[in-house]
Amino acid sequence: MSKEKKENAIYIGKKGTMNYCLVVVTIFNKGEKECVIRARGRSISKAVDVAEISTRKFLPEIIDIADVKIGSEELEGEHGLKTVSTIDIVLKRKATKK
Amino acid sequence: MSKEKKENAIYIGKKGTMNYCLVVVTIFNKGEKECVIRARGRSISKAVDVAEISTRKFLPEIIDIADVKIGSEELEGEHGLKTVSTIDIVLKRKATKK
Repeated sequence: MSKEKKENAIYIGKKGTMNYCLVVVTIFNKGEKECVIRARGRSISKAVDVAEISTRKFLPEIIDIADVKIGSEELEGEHGLKTVSTIDIVLKRKATKK
Repeated sequence: MSKEKKENAIYIGKKGTMNYCLVVVTIFNKGEKECVIRARGRSISKAVDVAEISTRKFLPEIIDIADVKIGSEELEGEHGLKTVSTIDIVLKRKATKK
């Protein structure tokens, strides 16, 4: 839990896109410098939507997409192990203007 | 068309994941150094699957994921303009061992 707290990870699941955007906005309104949007499998498209909408519509002056990483994970499925794709999108607060 | 040819873009649509993986394998078997996997909206998850499967299962010794970029595009929809998220995944041939 301390690790999650430290990096402000948002795990994308079955809720609506705007729910997750609101979490992003809330995190940065609390003054945090960074958060990571994480998703697996079919939720990856939604993760990209959340990152794009948060960055372009809600906080365009405040945050940027700093990094995007894709990867794979082994998950225990109904029929044994299966590999799912993952995405991590790092959002960062822009450097403050002087 | 000359631009597409130059960058070996693969546009992810409704075909099965393995169809696109086969295109990736074919491109690199022809000796190309790079290709870009592109997708919009719901196909983004499939694009990540194609990149991961091509890189980890089919050509692990030969290619790497060099870059991942996400963005947005305005599309003419049934009810006027709508914004869709996009992804570009760049696959590159690894440097040859000496």
